[in-house]
Formats: sequence, structure tokens, C-alpha cells
Amino acid sequence: MLGLLKKKPVDKLVEVLGKEKVKVSLVERKLYSYDATPIPIERAIPSAVIFPESQEDVEKLVQVCYQEDIPIFPRGAGSGLTGGAVPTVDKGVVVSFEKMKRFSVDVDNAVAFVEPGVITYELQQFVEGLGLFYPPDPSSFKYSTIGGNIAENAGGPRCLKYGVTREYVLGLTAVIREGKVLRTGSPVLKDVAGYDITKLFVGSEGTLGLITSAILKLIPKPKARATALVLFERLEDVGRAVTEIMTSGVFPSALEFMDADAIKAAEAYKPIGLPKDVAAILLVELDGSVEGVKEDLQTVERLLSRMGIEVKVAQDEASAEKLWTVRKNLGPALANLKTGKINEDIVFPRTYLSEAIPKLRDIAKKYDLLMVVFGHIGDGNLHVNLLYDKKDPQEEERAERAVDEVFQLALSYRGSITGEHGVGLTKRKFLKWQVGHVGIEVLKGIKAVFDPKNLFNPGKLLLE
Amino acid sequence: MLGLLKKKPVDKLVEVLGKEKVKVSLVERKLYSYDATPIPIERAIPSAVIFPESQEDVEKLVQVCYQEDIPIFPRGAGSGLTGGAVPTVDKGVVVSFEKMKRFSVDVDNAVAFVEPGVITYELQQFVEGLGLFYPPDPSSFKYSTIGGNIAENAGGPRCLKYGVTREYVLGLTAVIREGKVLRTGSPVLKDVAGYDITKLFVGSEGTLGLITSAILKLIPKPKARATALVLFERLEDVGRAVTEIMTSGVFPSALEFMDADAIKAAEAYKPIGLPKDVAAILLVELDGSVEGVKEDLQTVERLLSRMGIEVKVAQDEASAEKLWTVRKNLGPALANLKTGKINEDIVFPRTYLSEAIPKLRDIAKKYDLLMVVFGHIGDGNLHVNLLYDKKDPQEEERAERAVDEVFQLALSYRGSITGEHGVGLTKRKFLKWQVGHVGIEVLKGIKAVFDPKNLFNPGKLLLE
Repeated sequence: MLGLLKKKPVDKLVEVLGKEKVKVSLVERKLYSYDATPIPIERAIPSAVIFPESQEDVEKLVQVCYQEDIPIFPRGAGSGLTGGAVPTVDKGVVVSFEKMKRFSVDVDNAVAFVEPGVITYELQQFVEGLGLFYPPDPSSFKYSTIGGNIAENAGGPRCLKYGVTREYVLGLTAVIREGKVLRTGSPVLKDVAGYDITKLFVGSEGTLGLITSAILKLIPKPKARATALVLFERLEDVGRAVTEIMTSGVFPSALEFMDADAIKAAEAYKPIGLPKDVAAILLVELDGSVEGVKEDLQTVERLLSRMGIEVKVAQDEASAEKLWTVRKNLGPALANLKTGKINEDIVFPRTYLSEAIPKLRDIAKKYDLLMVVFGHIGDGNLHVNLLYDKKDPQEEERAERAVDEVFQLALSYRGSITGEHGVGLTKRKFLKWQVGHVGIEVLKGIKAVFDPKNLFNPGKLLLE
Repeated sequence: MLGLLKKKPVDKLVEVLGKEKVKVSLVERKLYSYDATPIPIERAIPSAVIFPESQEDVEKLVQVCYQEDIPIFPRGAGSGLTGGAVPTVDKGVVVSFEKMKRFSVDVDNAVAFVEPGVITYELQQFVEGLGLFYPPDPSSFKYSTIGGNIAENAGGPRCLKYGVTREYVLGLTAVIREGKVLRTGSPVLKDVAGYDITKLFVGSEGTLGLITSAILKLIPKPKARATALVLFERLEDVGRAVTEIMTSGVFPSALEFMDADAIKAAEAYKPIGLPKDVAAILLVELDGSVEGVKEDLQTVERLLSRMGIEVKVAQDEASAEKLWTVRKNLGPALANLKTGKINEDIVFPRTYLSEAIPKLRDIAKKYDLLMVVFGHIGDGNLHVNLLYDKKDPQEEERAERAVDEVFQLALSYRGSITGEHGVGLTKRKFLKWQVGHVGIEVLKGIKAVFDPKNLFNPGKLLLE
């Protein structure tokens, strides 16, 4: 009898939400125990996967989890690269927001009201049809969700001019400790009433509560766009070229960087005729009014040719698209070179690039690894790819040790251990190096305000 | 003997910092007990005014204050409008940052390293000479400080396109509880390592700790700028015109609104020949490349003339300057009408303006007050000015009662009680209306993490 009376915590969730929203089959539990993190991480099979369909469902599930001490692992599309969506304890539940994907757009006020499961690309396509623009463009934008983007404060190439996800989140509804509902911000551009809790949630990696809706800022969609390819014979010219552009009144929407090895890998994967004898290339994207883009292109060409640097302007949209495809294919192109890849999104103040890249190469040499570097030079965010053979445990171990030095190098230039991917599971031990012990103390204090039982995505961002 | 042994808390500050940095004369203490808040507020004469000159000074003073339970009231230029810099208890000390005003600019990385006492305008002038731009433009920018701007998250007309102060703060050094030093962020555009403590400090009104330095983001300085004056015969066309502009690919750097009474007041103060028979005017500022601005101006003219709305383009910089001077003179212009003025910076989603303004007029009528409305329509931030005679206590009281209804109206449209001025002393009782009791609970929790003794600017932002 006692066995019957004592329900399992998951049964209570089923009781409150219904069977349809609480999946307990092993297949589903296994399926939702992964994300896109490329390196081995600690993972657990959750006790259930929950699919809330409304604000009310989320409130109820948090209430039960908080009563029953069930850890909650929120999940967007599972495209994260640092283990943020991965459950780490067996008794936890994964909360997938894939059924909460309604959104509406208020054109006149240029804001969107979205649920967390909305696919970023779908929102973008929709608002562009209305003459509006939602700029954040992480590589995963075609399948990742707004909720995941907010949790990770996702960025992308356009962040140089347009900022990251944070800049577009005006307000949030979140369910925190004990199922309490927190509403922050408002559908306006200026609101300074109280501490900025909205921005505190952006990038909090699901550790403060569950985001159930967001108010997003939209801006006018630029009328025109153009891309130029800049070829460098010497690495040290890259930084100077960027400064020339950025102090000339031209504000590029993206400045993407590829080193010689990245170019070779891209050409080996899908050749489009990129020159293989250069030290680096830059992709420069400009946007704005039709005449404005023309003028800006001329300015860039004039400035750089004066420095003896060659600029090739994509003559039509198809050629521009082709260049951007090369950049976007770099991930799969590298996967062709070796079976294993650690992609660390470190950040350097951009002028240190020409100094830091040789030092990165030294690290690769020291650990006898293949390294390919590309990234968003406009904002200093480099993707340092360490390639290894998954079947060679020694090489894999060397790659992991090299990462430590890569982070130390970034921090020695006052950079960051992560520009886009977040801390998650994989960078927890490095966070203290960056924010210091007072920083860690403050982060832990804030965590406790929203989640005193440590049930929201436990074990992420902070070491216990 | 006992009396000699037992030092006053202020003596310890003198001992640690030296006499030159700790002023105790009544004149100075009185001088630093004010800010620019136009309405009567509770004020106290501080026990000392401290002028730190370095990071180390600030650490020392916070250590002493934390040991001795001395409340700390940080102060920029004292230009705040909600009592944020005003001491509220006699035993407190004012900390003025006017001697910490060093700054340096890293052109290549487009960042500035600033101390809190730097005058915003001085930084702006300097970086513009280098081809860079620091956009935040609160009305007080010619005398207010970066530290104060950060504490209040200052905005201005250009926030529509460029965002508020928050968007330009990449990192901070702050001294918090017990004199601990907190370093947040880094001189790069992307950094997602840990919760965003930098943005949490922006707009925290000095209640979390003392900001001792900041890393600011700079952007390319636009090459060209133009201003157009738009004349409206009907209030309800304003919202439609804004939507037309904002979905046409044109992104104005400012969209400023003045109602009929504001125009009359401006013309009575310093006439420049603005039409007095219109319902409202908009000032539209465009910036960017030379050709881009031309094209955008043409687009705006074409769109609005199609709606039957008259657009006058300022033919040269002098005429544009004249139009902006009118807007900037509105403050003093209103002071000419009556001796007392309550200026509330409420925010509405911008399309509700034509609906909300008549309702604001009803409030003015109900309380028999003169009301003038102007503001930043692009971001929905309206300045609602209630004018009264300071010698008429009944009229003053009616004005104060009217304010309650003004806030309720803004919140009924999901707006905000403050877009720029902050909560300070004067809006504390209204904050709960906006953020709710869960919101207040969270704000108090966060305050306690940084300042468990409630010594940093006590009594501001939150009711005790």
C-alpha cells in the first residue's frame, strides 16, 4: 500500500500536466539528453521530457519541480555548443519549448511578442516581409529558437553593427523559484524602472528560471546590401585595414575573417576559386540605403587600395551569396579534415589579432595539432578550431590541454573565453579566470535570488 | 579620555584619505545636498563630501564606510531629476567623482576607458575628432558625467537608432560591499561569460556600489546629417507617419515630437517662425553617408507628401541647428510660463500617442493645470510637463496628484513610469505598480547581494 501511496515525482508532473505533455519513454528521454556540443561531456538520461504548451503549464511544472526538488533542464533546439541544454542528473527533467512557438508582430511599434520555441529564422522571414528587421544571426539561426538565443545571448556576424540578441530583448516573462511569475521590461525602447532584470536573463543559460515569452525590438529593414572580398598578403595589415574602415564613417554590417588554412579547407570542401596564396581574407558586408551602400563601397575600395590592398566587390547578389556560403560552410569543411573538432569562440580586442594568431599557432605546434582560425574580426570574436582524430585518445587529450592555453591567451589580452557559445558545462572551470573570485561570488549570489534550491539547469555556468 | 579615543566615523575617513579629499565645512556639505530635481524632496545635509582621486581612494572609503555603517551617496554632476544624487540621512557622506575624470581612447579597437567624472560632451568631442562616435545624448550631456549617465542609463533623442547608455558600456570596475573590487566585461563587443553584471550596474542608480571606471564602445562617426520638420494638422497622423518611415528602410537617428502648446511656448520664448496653427510637429534627423542621407530625405518627403503631410527640409546646418535649439530650449521656455514644473518622462508604445495625449489633457483639465507635452516619439518617451505656481500650494498639490494618474495611464498601455530619469526618490512608490511584487522581491534580493548593509545610496529606487 505504501508503495502505491508514495508517488514518484514524475507521476505528479503527469498528474498536473497530463500524459501528452510528459514523455517518459526511454527513446524520448535519450533523444533529449544531447545537444550539439562536439566534445565528450557528462550527460544523464532525464526522468522525463516535458512539452509545455502555455504559460500556465510552465507555472505548474515549476511549482511541482520546486516542491519535489526535481532539477529542470530547459531546451530550445539543442543546437548549443557548450552543453547548456544537456541534463546532468538522472532525476532531472528536460523542458522542451518546441510546442510554445506562437508569435505576433506589432508593426506600428516595431516589436514582436514571441514564445521561446519560435525558430529565429521564421521570425526573421516574417518581419522582413513587413519592412522590419530582427538582426541577430547565430550560425544556427535556421533551426535554433529565440528562447535558446536569449538564454545564450546569441550573436553572429552582424553583431558588429547591430549588436547581439541582448540588444533586441525589451522584456520577458519568466517563471522562477516556486513557480513565481516575473514580468520584466515593456514594449518600448526606453525603460529605466528598476534594475535591468531583462538583460540579466539574457545569457543566463537557463539557470535563473524558465523564459515563457519575450518582447523583441525590431528595426527598419535596410534597403540594400553589398559584399566585398578583401585579400591580404600580410596578416599584420588586417587590423590596420579594419581601423581605416571603422574611422571613415562607414559602418559595415559584418567583417568576417578567414586565415590561410581556413581558405584552403573551404576550397578543398567546395571550390569557388578563392585565392590560395594569401595570408588572410576579409568579407566586408555593407548595408543601408541604395546610394549609401554604393558610396560606402567606394570609400572602402579607395581606402584599402591606397594601402595596397586588393578589394573585389561581388557584382551581384549571387556572387555575394557564394562568398557567404563559403564562410558558412567552414564548419562542415573542417569536419572533412579530421573526425574531431574543438571550436572555441574566444575574443580578443581586434587589433591584437595579428599578434595573437602566431601565438595560437605556437600552441597548436606545441601540442602537435592542426588548427584553423576564422571568425568575426569586427568584434574580435575568433573561432579557434583544434582538429584531432577521434580514434586517437592521445591526440584528443592534447587538444583538450591546448584549449586551456588558448583561453589563457585570450584573457592575457583582456579578451573573453566566450563570445557566443556561453559557459555551459565546458567552460565552467575557466570562468573564474575571467571574472575573478569576487565575480563568482556575485554570480552565485544572483543565482540564489532566483533559484535558491539550484533546480534551474544545475551545474551549468557555475561550478557547484 | 574616552571622548578622545572614540573617533567620529568621518574622522576615520579623514585619517585614511587625508583632509584634502574629505570636506566637512557646512558650505560644502550644503552645496552637495542638492541635485536638479524640480519638486520638493526629502534631503539631508551630509556629514562630509568626499572627493576620491583614484581607484584606491574609493576602495579605502568604501572599506571605512562599510566598517562604520556610513551611508554613501554617489554623485556625478548632480543634474539628475529624480533625487538620485541627494543624501537622505545626516550621517551619510556624498562621494563626488569630479576629480576622477581621466580617459583614454583606443582608436583601433574603438573603445574608451573612462573614469566616472568624465563629462559626456568632452568625451564625445574628443572621439569625434578621431572619426568615432559616442551617441548617448541626454539633455544634460554638456555637463553631466559618464558615471552619472551610467548610473541612470541615460538616453536622449538618438536612442531611437543608437540605443541608450547601456548599449555602450562594455565593462566596469566597481567597488561593492566591504570595499571589494568587482571587474566586469571586457573591451570587446561580444562577451557572454557569466551573467551580465555590467548591464545590471547600468541604471542601478548608485545602489549596488561605486563605479570607478568603465569601458565604452565607440562606433564610426556618421559622415552626414540632415534634419526635416514635419507639420501635422491632425494628431492621429503622427503615429501613421512614424510607421511609414520606420518600415521604408529609413532609420532616423531621432524623431522628436512637440504638441501645439509646446510649439506656442517655444515661439513665445525665442521665436524662429514655427507655424502656430498645427496640431503637432516632428523633427526628423537622418544620418549616415552623404548620398545615403540624401536618398533617405527624399524617401521621407515622398512618403509623407503622399499622405498629404508637409515636410520642410533644413537647407543648411544653421537652419537644422535652429530647429534643434527650439527643441532643447523647451525646458527654459516652459519655466517662463509658470514658476513650478513637474516633468515626467513616461513612456507609451508610440502608436498610442494619439490616443494617450487627449487622455493626458483630460487629467490636466480634471486638476485644472497647464500641461505641455513633447518628447522622443520614436521611442515613445514623452515628457509630460505639469505647470503650476510655486506660490500656490493648492495648485502644487493638484499637480502632484495629477502625476499619479499620468503614471497609471502610461502603465495601462504597458508603458513605463520612466524612460530616462530613473526612479530615484520621486518614483519609488510607483515602481511596484510597474514591476509587481515578484519584481520588487527580485530587486531587493539583488540589492542585498551587492550591498547587504544597504549603505550604497540607501532609500533610492526601492522603498525600504
